[in-house]
Amino acid sequence: MSRLAAVREAAGAAGVGALLLTPGPDLRYVTGYDALPLERLTCLVVPAAGEAFLVVPRLELPAAEHSPAARLGLEFVAWDETDDPYALVARRLGSPSVVALADRMWAMQSLRFRAALPGAEQVLAGSVLGRLRVRKSPAEVAALREAGAAIDAVHAQVPGFLRAGRTEREVGRDIAEAILAAGHSTVDFVIVASGPNGASPHHELSDRVIRPGDPVVVDIGGQMPSGYCSDSTRVYCVGEPPAGFAEYYEVLRRAQEAACAAVRPGVPCEAVDAAARDIIAEAGHGEHFIHRTGHGIGLETHEDPYIVSGNTAPLAPGFAFSVEPGIYLPSRHGARIEDILVCTETGGERLNDRPRELVVV
Amino acid sequence: MSRLAAVREAAGAAGVGALLLTPGPDLRYVTGYDALPLERLTCLVVPAAGEAFLVVPRLELPAAEHSPAARLGLEFVAWDETDDPYALVARRLGSPSVVALADRMWAMQSLRFRAALPGAEQVLAGSVLGRLRVRKSPAEVAALREAGAAIDAVHAQVPGFLRAGRTEREVGRDIAEAILAAGHSTVDFVIVASGPNGASPHHELSDRVIRPGDPVVVDIGGQMPSGYCSDSTRVYCVGEPPAGFAEYYEVLRRAQEAACAAVRPGVPCEAVDAAARDIIAEAGHGEHFIHRTGHGIGLETHEDPYIVSGNTAPLAPGFAFSVEPGIYLPSRHGARIEDILVCTETGGERLNDRPRELVVV
Repeated sequence: MSRLAAVREAAGAAGVGALLLTPGPDLRYVTGYDALPLERLTCLVVPAAGEAFLVVPRLELPAAEHSPAARLGLEFVAWDETDDPYALVARRLGSPSVVALADRMWAMQSLRFRAALPGAEQVLAGSVLGRLRVRKSPAEVAALREAGAAIDAVHAQVPGFLRAGRTEREVGRDIAEAILAAGHSTVDFVIVASGPNGASPHHELSDRVIRPGDPVVVDIGGQMPSGYCSDSTRVYCVGEPPAGFAEYYEVLRRAQEAACAAVRPGVPCEAVDAAARDIIAEAGHGEHFIHRTGHGIGLETHEDPYIVSGNTAPLAPGFAFSVEPGIYLPSRHGARIEDILVCTETGGERLNDRPRELVVV
Repeated sequence: MSRLAAVREAAGAAGVGALLLTPGPDLRYVTGYDALPLERLTCLVVPAAGEAFLVVPRLELPAAEHSPAARLGLEFVAWDETDDPYALVARRLGSPSVVALADRMWAMQSLRFRAALPGAEQVLAGSVLGRLRVRKSPAEVAALREAGAAIDAVHAQVPGFLRAGRTEREVGRDIAEAILAAGHSTVDFVIVASGPNGASPHHELSDRVIRPGDPVVVDIGGQMPSGYCSDSTRVYCVGEPPAGFAEYYEVLRRAQEAACAAVRPGVPCEAVDAAARDIIAEAGHGEHFIHRTGHGIGLETHEDPYIVSGNTAPLAPGFAFSVEPGIYLPSRHGARIEDILVCTETGGERLNDRPRELVVV
């Protein structure tokens, strides 16, 4: 069954009258069309009963016609600059009682749909698509494996970029270029967090000059031409690590290893989180591990399943997600180790294989 | 008056009880904080009566505290992985009757706010912020001028990248690297549309091999560290242009010139569109100019004001926008010329100054 047919069936089963998918990962998943996310409305409309159609600004019609969406036998409905595409969708849909919006649809669009379809309750398309997207097909796993190899190739170059006297931003620029050169089509994020900045999990780049003895957390990722994303973190130390660092780094390494080893079908997501957290807490660093253990990955860097306390959903074959515990000592330094894993029939397969030991450069 | 104070005052005047600004250009405009757009809620809450506060995931608290938002004297409210940040906002806000959402807020967030604040009508923050954002300050104009100079520096290199036998994608990769090297922090789009692909205004990159005699439309832009965006289009021809091309290119050049010359305070946006469109229609190419003449630009590549038929809003000093008419002959080739202009007290200042004549390489 095609993804489009599967989605239509799931929409009907969920009591959703129509899916409204604007550019983003939901649209790309269903049609393969990597449409530009802009203010002009592009929207795949999938009625639970009836034929799907793609609403597209006339100037983007040739791009849509050259996209994989053209192979789905969809009607393309082009609109002109002075038309109201929301009214157009409403006329064709009639009066659905529930419509499901792409999870990332912008408010400037969802509020227009609310006005054009005042009788329709709005829910998230994730409630319909989520169960399909979370279980990666073999082709999707292959695409994630390719993304993992690409980002590993970048990490292999990082020791050559890092040295005392350079700023995080300079190192970050080299990494960004290497991410593209390794085959990614976009650079999604480049975190180079040196010394005390390593204690901020989502620090990006600054003009801080890297100093001898700095641990440096490097968390990087991009999107491949396939649409699938990479994301991997390693820690480097410029010269000998500061006192105490190697000890908690070793705790972290064991925690990440234990969480990876906990992955297998049927295990609740929160149990993978607990496997890492227990080891870190036992070593007295519980309060220094201030985020969940991981997030799903696919066409988005962050998607279901979330590896977090409270998520009792069981893992299943094809689930792909990060395992990335961290330990952060405010104002001092921090560390995080991150691999992408895919759940197989028997356990977890890591899609990143750079060494996980502290790399002294 | 600070932007935050101006926004609060405008919210009150518009009858909005509170603004809810998630990461994106609205948040960056008000606070300077370039927060990561992720599924965890980061949200600046600006009550019309009462103190603004920033809701932030605990792991991003250090990043927020190092951002310009930290200088605004805001309360930062951190939430933990297992908290419900929407309920937290609702508890603090009470029962506003109208809340204004960042125009790009994702549905996964706007629907959560709808559930948490069931009595609040949702409107767009653009209705409050738009009038402020559309009129660029001298500092913003300077930032756009810097962005214009950076993308001009890339266009100056394009003739060196373009030659018969290379694919659009290869040329596009060189351009992407040059966009970063010219000082942009991100590459936002790279259109290299050769031969018949030039007839598709939003074509991006393909594996088509560029051939002798191909016109190539190159439309490129990125975001500077300041947050302000560049966007400029030039047409190159690899060898002698095909029959008929030079004629309509000259029509286009005159149309773009006329539209730029029409810019001054008080002129309706649609009159700038008409200035270009009339010349193109008179030459018999009206049906080949299938999009509006331009879009505003600032912290977003596309924002108010739109230079389009039906937009009767008058230009005012500080408005910044593209002027980019195009002529597209389906299956054959196409052309577009684009500059960013800022409306001054007396006319329009172009922020791009690469030659507008057809460049034969």
